[in-house]
Amino acid sequence: MTPSTVCYRCDRTYRDTDRVRCDCGEPLWFDIDSHGFDLNDRGDGRGLSHYAGALPLSELEGLATAAGNTPLIRSQPLDEVAGCRVFVKDEGGNPTGSYKDRGSAIAVSRALDRSDNAVGTVSYGNMAMSTAAHAASRGRECVVLVPDDIPPGRLELIGQYDPTILRVEGDYGGLYDEVLELSRELPVSFLLSDAPGRISGYKTALFEIYEAMTPATPDAIALPASSGGFASGIWRGILDLQTAGVIDDPPRLYLVQTAASDPITRAFEADRDAVSALPPEDVGETIAHSIGNPDPPSGTRALTAVRETGGAVCSVTDDEIRTAKRQFARRSGFCVEPASAAPLAGVAQLTERGAIDRDESVVLVPTGTGFKEMGTGTEAVRTETVARSGLSSQLESRLST
Amino acid sequence: MTPSTVCYRCDRTYRDTDRVRCDCGEPLWFDIDSHGFDLNDRGDGRGLSHYAGALPLSELEGLATAAGNTPLIRSQPLDEVAGCRVFVKDEGGNPTGSYKDRGSAIAVSRALDRSDNAVGTVSYGNMAMSTAAHAASRGRECVVLVPDDIPPGRLELIGQYDPTILRVEGDYGGLYDEVLELSRELPVSFLLSDAPGRISGYKTALFEIYEAMTPATPDAIALPASSGGFASGIWRGILDLQTAGVIDDPPRLYLVQTAASDPITRAFEADRDAVSALPPEDVGETIAHSIGNPDPPSGTRALTAVRETGGAVCSVTDDEIRTAKRQFARRSGFCVEPASAAPLAGVAQLTERGAIDRDESVVLVPTGTGFKEMGTGTEAVRTETVARSGLSSQLESRLST
Repeated sequence: MTPSTVCYRCDRTYRDTDRVRCDCGEPLWFDIDSHGFDLNDRGDGRGLSHYAGALPLSELEGLATAAGNTPLIRSQPLDEVAGCRVFVKDEGGNPTGSYKDRGSAIAVSRALDRSDNAVGTVSYGNMAMSTAAHAASRGRECVVLVPDDIPPGRLELIGQYDPTILRVEGDYGGLYDEVLELSRELPVSFLLSDAPGRISGYKTALFEIYEAMTPATPDAIALPASSGGFASGIWRGILDLQTAGVIDDPPRLYLVQTAASDPITRAFEADRDAVSALPPEDVGETIAHSIGNPDPPSGTRALTAVRETGGAVCSVTDDEIRTAKRQFARRSGFCVEPASAAPLAGVAQLTERGAIDRDESVVLVPTGTGFKEMGTGTEAVRTETVARSGLSSQLESRLST
Repeated sequence: MTPSTVCYRCDRTYRDTDRVRCDCGEPLWFDIDSHGFDLNDRGDGRGLSHYAGALPLSELEGLATAAGNTPLIRSQPLDEVAGCRVFVKDEGGNPTGSYKDRGSAIAVSRALDRSDNAVGTVSYGNMAMSTAAHAASRGRECVVLVPDDIPPGRLELIGQYDPTILRVEGDYGGLYDEVLELSRELPVSFLLSDAPGRISGYKTALFEIYEAMTPATPDAIALPASSGGFASGIWRGILDLQTAGVIDDPPRLYLVQTAASDPITRAFEADRDAVSALPPEDVGETIAHSIGNPDPPSGTRALTAVRETGGAVCSVTDDEIRTAKRQFARRSGFCVEPASAAPLAGVAQLTERGAIDRDESVVLVPTGTGFKEMGTGTEAVRTETVARSGLSSQLESRLST
């Protein structure tokens, strides 16, 4: 299959599928016709290859075959917190612990299939780990550009897959345009947050949600948002299922940002058509580092997805995120990263202000596992010490209270 | 369904399904007739409920519905290391990051369905996290007994699910019999490594392996081994599929232990019929703490599984485990815990000595994710620093070498 890419905004199509952005400035995605796409025609494949008919490649190998196929669970104990009927789609179950594996499964595979180039990325978080791991499982080279002051724990997580790691001194946030140019000049394919192949991979999460809930359908889906890539993929999945006749009314897309860096929320609240980069003085520190991007490459597309589906964008504080992370573990049993707890806090806000009804079904998508940044022993935990001889009486008194 | 439990060794059956051990001293498992069990008759359920016909309960809810359904991938780059055709069944994709969720999904669910008791366990690792998380997702109480000197990182991982944590002073290793007695006296159901419900849950991993590989079949399956519970479950799955007519020749079961604590290896090598506890002076320190049990409750059953399937038991050093963990990440893209890397090192030993042939298909089962104990920043990682202005030339020189 040799699909073209297309701009969601101006509809221009391109035969050059290595192209990432339209002449109009917006990011492209693959133009695959989904008329007749059957969600239930799964074929032999597992994971993403179930949906081969809607993807820009047909054969997967290595780690790519392990991506996706994550659980969707109904979590009643979270209803009270969120104020609606909660479903959790746990993307932390992906092989490198985040939804990024769906994107890497398609984008990295496609790049490696099409040339002998190395792959590369600009990230010091989940996307870096995922890209490096997928290249490693194919025995291929990967270059990861990280900021010079990357925390050592993250370096260790990325470094385990043995990519070439370059610490870049200087304006890290501004690397986007430069590496797209380097991709054209050097034998390396940089796959950034809005690479069309990644967006194709992300839409499979939406397909899985519909497949798991059928014959019911979600009223809304709530995602953490940063670059806008994941939201774009989910929206593209919705559009595909509308074309295929599976979806009549699209689910409302709710995006939740960290208040420390929330350019999409600001554009939404100001009723602007486009998302612009936050000035440095408007960007704060946050524990939700996976969603700290102040200049989201797919921000305007994500904003459009929200408007088209009748959703909203909101922001939450680190304190709200900490509470939501605890509630995820204590009420649903999922250990999520701080960024992934944001949708729970955001949905609680939205139900509070009446945007979501109590009897509506809302899918929260924790996009990454919390295990990568836990176990350091810095958190205080309440315990009691008991001598073995006193175990029985101690237990008895605990259990009767 | 009200199944009975049965002893694998003396065939005695019991109507009391809370009973864990036979009068003969060996652990019991559920006696569910698998004649006519159809691996492909999946019904509506996802994960473990696909196999409801072979399980001692039919309805799952909460986190239990997220357990299992983990990927099996073919990993060619590992062939060179292992000396055979490698498949990887990644149990780290379970919701709390280990195969223990399969066991908790059945054992915790069943205990909570049958009474208002709390559940409890004796563990300071994966089983504690899994048991606490499954109880939390049902809004029910959980008691976790840990040793007084538990590392703070583990306490944090367990504590997030908010169980009652009791630090036990005194002989922690000897708690097994005492808590089984407390289960009979107090309103708490302790679910230890060999609880019959856990064993039922574990066999679903074997079902999934056969379902994913069909029409091919594995020649061998290699597991890390400690308490012997997981090996027992995999064996029970094999026996079920033999009864159902799905398996003619059983796959050989290989168990891999840490050389620091390897009672099953010692019994196997000495041609003994039973596994006995290692004396304290024979137990060393190891990075593979998930498989450090010197007195495995299901050790003899696991040894029997190995003998009946024509497999073997072997031990590996921490150095071999460290190397295998790196190879998993660098060649297959999986981040596994040290204990879970052991089967790769063990299989390399076994092919070396001719027990496994080069063209045989061997499924390695990393039982737990490595993310829980990474990201501390203590590991040295090779990087290069580059100024933004020099990025292009630096990349060019790196990519041409």
